[in-house]
Amino acid sequence: MSVFILRIICSDEKGLVYKTSKVLFENNLSIIKNDEFVDNENEMFFMRTEYSGLCDKDKIISDLKNVLPTNVQIFLEKSKVKNVILLVTKEHHCLSDLLIRNQYKDLNFNILAVIGNHDVLQPLVEKFNIPFHFISSENITREKHENLILKTIEKYTPDYIVLAKFMRILTGSFIDTFKYKIINIHHSFLPAFIGANPYMQAYNRGVKIIGATAHFVTIDLDEGPIIYQDVIQVSHSKTAQDMARSGKDVEKIVLANALKLVFEDKIFINTNKTIIFE
Amino acid sequence: MSVFILRIICSDEKGLVYKTSKVLFENNLSIIKNDEFVDNENEMFFMRTEYSGLCDKDKIISDLKNVLPTNVQIFLEKSKVKNVILLVTKEHHCLSDLLIRNQYKDLNFNILAVIGNHDVLQPLVEKFNIPFHFISSENITREKHENLILKTIEKYTPDYIVLAKFMRILTGSFIDTFKYKIINIHHSFLPAFIGANPYMQAYNRGVKIIGATAHFVTIDLDEGPIIYQDVIQVSHSKTAQDMARSGKDVEKIVLANALKLVFEDKIFINTNKTIIFE
Amino acid sequence: MSVFILRIICSDEKGLVYKTSKVLFENNLSIIKNDEFVDNENEMFFMRTEYSGLCDKDKIISDLKNVLPTNVQIFLEKSKVKNVILLVTKEHHCLSDLLIRNQYKDLNFNILAVIGNHDVLQPLVEKFNIPFHFISSENITREKHENLILKTIEKYTPDYIVLAKFMRILTGSFIDTFKYKIINIHHSFLPAFIGANPYMQAYNRGVKIIGATAHFVTIDLDEGPIIYQDVIQVSHSKTAQDMARSGKDVEKIVLANALKLVFEDKIFINTNKTIIFE
Amino acid sequence: MSVFILRIICSDEKGLVYKTSKVLFENNLSIIKNDEFVDNENEMFFMRTEYSGLCDKDKIISDLKNVLPTNVQIFLEKSKVKNVILLVTKEHHCLSDLLIRNQYKDLNFNILAVIGNHDVLQPLVEKFNIPFHFISSENITREKHENLILKTIEKYTPDYIVLAKFMRILTGSFIDTFKYKIINIHHSFLPAFIGANPYMQAYNRGVKIIGATAHFVTIDLDEGPIIYQDVIQVSHSKTAQDMARSGKDVEKIVLANALKLVFEDKIFINTNKTIIFE
Repeated sequence: MSVFILRIICSDEKGLVYKTSKVLFENNLSIIKNDEFVDNENEMFFMRTEYSGLCDKDKIISDLKNVLPTNVQIFLEKSKVKNVILLVTKEHHCLSDLLIRNQYKDLNFNILAVIGNHDVLQPLVEKFNIPFHFISSENITREKHENLILKTIEKYTPDYIVLAKFMRILTGSFIDTFKYKIINIHHSFLPAFIGANPYMQAYNRGVKIIGATAHFVTIDLDEGPIIYQDVIQVSHSKTAQDMARSGKDVEKIVLANALKLVFEDKIFINTNKTIIFE
Repeated sequence: MSVFILRIICSDEKGLVYKTSKVLFENNLSIIKNDEFVDNENEMFFMRTEYSGLCDKDKIISDLKNVLPTNVQIFLEKSKVKNVILLVTKEHHCLSDLLIRNQYKDLNFNILAVIGNHDVLQPLVEKFNIPFHFISSENITREKHENLILKTIEKYTPDYIVLAKFMRILTGSFIDTFKYKIINIHHSFLPAFIGANPYMQAYNRGVKIIGATAHFVTIDLDEGPIIYQDVIQVSHSKTAQDMARSGKDVEKIVLANALKLVFEDKIFINTNKTIIFE
Repeated sequence: MSVFILRIICSDEKGLVYKTSKVLFENNLSIIKNDEFVDNENEMFFMRTEYSGLCDKDKIISDLKNVLPTNVQIFLEKSKVKNVILLVTKEHHCLSDLLIRNQYKDLNFNILAVIGNHDVLQPLVEKFNIPFHFISSENITREKHENLILKTIEKYTPDYIVLAKFMRILTGSFIDTFKYKIINIHHSFLPAFIGANPYMQAYNRGVKIIGATAHFVTIDLDEGPIIYQDVIQVSHSKTAQDMARSGKDVEKIVLANALKLVFEDKIFINTNKTIIFE
Repeated sequence: MSVFILRIICSDEKGLVYKTSKVLFENNLSIIKNDEFVDNENEMFFMRTEYSGLCDKDKIISDLKNVLPTNVQIFLEKSKVKNVILLVTKEHHCLSDLLIRNQYKDLNFNILAVIGNHDVLQPLVEKFNIPFHFISSENITREKHENLILKTIEKYTPDYIVLAKFMRILTGSFIDTFKYKIINIHHSFLPAFIGANPYMQAYNRGVKIIGATAHFVTIDLDEGPIIYQDVIQVSHSKTAQDMARSGKDVEKIVLANALKLVFEDKIFINTNKTIIFE
C-alpha cells in the first residue's frame, strides 16, 4: 500500500481538521501522521497529512474541494524519491557529502547529474558514476550561460535543483522557471553577512559564532525562505580561513538537513517564510 | 471564551482524528492547535487538542467515549495557572529563578509556598512574600520528616511539587501520593552520572560536555521520565567547582523550560518516557 | 599573597614570552596562568598573565618597559571585585539575574546602584537593599538626561557600567567618558537585526535560530566589540512575542557570561574586536 | 624554516615558563604559539609550544632537561602530516567522511590503508585508490584475527590507528602495542550508554539529547580519555533507527574534530583525561 502526502493551505475557519479527516476516513484511508498550523497573523490554515491506502488522487482532491474554503490550495503526492540536479563551482564539501548520501541512499533523493561552471570536481563526480556537465561561463553572457545550463537540466526533468556551493548569481528568469524548486546553502547565519565572502565579513566583525543557512532561492539574493540554520562557536584565534574551514562542516550538515525536510515534503512556503512539520 | 486542553490516549486504529474532531465540531468547539503521535512500537495513539468555546466537559468526555476505543483515557482540563509547592535545601539558583518568574508572571504558575529542610533560603523567599516552611530532618526518621512535609503540602492542595535542588531522596510512599506530579532537576545529563555529586563524577571522567536533566520523579532514583535536557561545553581547565558553577545556569534554564511544558499540559507519560507536543 | 593580572600589548617580535617571564621570575613572582596570542594580520602580541607574590607594581611595569618594544601598553591590576552601576528601563530579566548573582556572590562584582529611566523596577531593586535612582527622560533633552545620569554615577566611581536592557541610545560624549567600560546586551545575534525590535525583525525574516549578543558600547550603535553570543532554535510556530519570551533567557545568560569575562580581566580590545583568554 | 611542536610535562614549580622560553630564545627559535596548564590537583605542569627556526632537536631536549625538574617528560616533533590506518566494519559514514578529507587534504593526515573485518566497504575505499585489506574474523580466534590485522598494520608503520566504526572489541595486548595511538568513535554521549546499541538504549531511556564521543582506546571498554563530544536534540517521535540516522552526522563530525586535535599534536594525556590546547 502506498503512502501519500497531502498538504492543504486555506483561510482558517472552524472544522477544517474534521472536514479533512472525514474525507480521508470516508475514502478508507489511514492517517499515519497529521500536523497543522494556524498563522493567526494572516488567518491562514496549513495542514500536512501522511496517509496510506488505495487512493484515487483526483477523487480525494475533488472531495476536499467540496468541503474546504474556496481559496484552498491542495498538494497531494505519492511519497517518492526526489530527482535532483546539483550545480557546483569549485568547492567539494557539500557535493562530496551529497554524493556519499546518494551512493548509500542516506537521503530520499537521486542525483541525476552535476553541472559545474568549472571542471575541477568532474573526477570526483565520475568516481560515483554520475554524469558531470562542465558548462563554463567564460567569454559568454550570463543569459547564454544560463541557457546552456537550462538545456542540460531539461534533459533530466528534476524535481529540485540544489546549489551545492554554486558561486554565481542566478537571473530572475532562471529562478522563475524553477519557483521554490531551487535550494541554496549560504555560508553565514542569514541575515548576517549577505553576499560575498561572509567568513571574511564575520572575521572582520569579530563575531563569536558563525553559521550556515539553507534556503529556497528567490530573486532577492540570500533573502529567500529559510529552511535550516546552524552555528558553531569561534574565538579570536581563528582567521577567516580557519572559519571557512570549520564552517564547511556546518554547511554540509545544514544543507543535508534542509534537503531531508524538502525531499520528505515537510515544508510549506508561507509568504517569505517556511512552515516545517518535522 | 475559555480554552480547554484535551488529551487522549488509546490503542491506535483508523479514524481517530476524524472521530475526535467530529465530536468537537458537533459541539461547536474551535480547534486552536492539534497534535497527535502514534507509538508504533506499542500501537498506541496520543492526541492533544487545544480548543475554545462553551464546553460541557462531561458531555464532551461522554461523546468521545462513545466513539473511541474502549481502552481510551481522556484528560480534559480548562487551561489554567498551576499551583506549585517548591522543595529546596541550600542552593538558591533554581529557587531564585523561579521566584523571579513567579513575581513577573513569566511562567504559567503560582508558587504557593516553599518548604526547606534547611533555613538558609528563608530570607530570599520572604523577600518575595511567599511563605517559607522550615522542616528540618535532623534527629527524626525519614518517614517522620516526610510526614511533616506532607502535612504542610496538604494545607495548600498544589497541582505540582517541584524539587528545586532538594537534596534528599523521597520514599516510594511520598512519590506515589503525587504520581507524575513531582518534577526534579538533576545536575547531569542523565543517564550519565546518576546519584551524588555528578559534577565531581564528570570532572573525574574528563567529559567535554556537561548537562542538566529535568524529569518526573519515580521510585527509581534519577530514572523517571525525562522532560528536558541541555548541555554546555567544558574543557580540561575546569575544576569540578567550575563545572558546578557553570552548570547552575544550565540547571535553572532546563528546569524552567521543563516546567513551562508541564504547566501548559503539553506532556503525556508513555511508560517511562514523555511525549511532548511543543 | 595577592593575585595580579598583567596584560601586555605590543608589536610582535622574538623573545617576548621569555623577556616577560624573566621579569616575573627575577621579581620572585609565581605564574598561575599564562596566555598569549599573536594577531598576525597586524603583527601585534597580546599576553595575559595571572601571577601571585609580593609585587611592587611600579617596579614590574618599569622592568617590563625596559625589555619590551617601545610601543608596549601594560595593564597591571590586583585581582579584585568590580564595582558596577546598572542602567535599566522596564524589562526585569537581566536585572533580576544580576541582582541574584550579586546577592549570592555568584559573579565577581558588586552592584553599587541601579539607575532607571522608568521607576517600575524600583521595588525589585530595593528588595535587595540596593539604591535605585529614578531619572526620567521626560520633558528634558537627551543631554540634560545624560548629565543627570552622569552626576549620579559620579557619586559611586564604578569600574563598569552595565546596560541591563537600557532602551535608550547614549551620546558619543557619554560613551567617551567611559571608554570600553560600558557593556550592553543586545537581543539579537549581531550583526543580524541591529536597532529596534530585533525579535519582530527575526520573526518577519523567518529565521530558525535567534540569539543575543553582549558587547562593549562604542559610538556606532550595536557595532562595538563583541564579547559573547549565544543562540536558540525557533520554529515557524513562534510569534515575535514567543521569541522575545524565550530570548530573555538567552539574553540574561549571555550578559552574565560576558560580565564574568570582563570582571575577571580576561579581555583585550583589539581594534573593534575582543581577544578573550578563557 | 620548519615548525616544531614541543610538549612538556613535569611537576609544577616557579619559573617553568621562564626557563623553557629562555632555552628557546637562546637557541634562536621563535615561539608561534604557547599554551600551558597547571593541574593543581596533581601539581603537574603541562606546556605546549609551537616554534619555528633551525632546530637541533637533541640539543633542545638536553638544554631543557638541564633546567627543568627531573621528572620532566619532553615530546618534541617536527610538525608533520600523520600516517593513519583505518579499521572498519560495515558502516560507511565515518569512513566516507575521512576518505573525502584525505582526498582533498582537509585534515592533516594521510590514509595508508583501510582494514575491514567485512568486505562491503572495499569498493568505496578503492574508488579513492587506497588499499583495502579484508581480514575476516570468521572461524578464527580473536587472537588469530588480531594477529592478521597486526601483520598488515606492520607493513605500513602508521602514526595512528583510527577505529572508524570498527565493531569489534580489541584485546589488551593489541591496545598496548599502540598505546594512546588508537582513536575510537563511540555512538553515544559517554559515559551514558556504554557498550552495544547505544541508540536503542537512548530510545528506551527516552532521552531528549543524543551524542557521540571520540576517545583514545584503553583496555577498559569505552572508558579511555575523551577527546571530543557533541550532541543533537531528539524528540519522542524519533525511533531508535531515526536516532541512529541523525547520530551518524554527529559521529562523523565528532571523529573528524577529534582527529584534527590529535594530528596537530594538541593533546596531552593526563591520567585518564585529555588536556587539549586548541
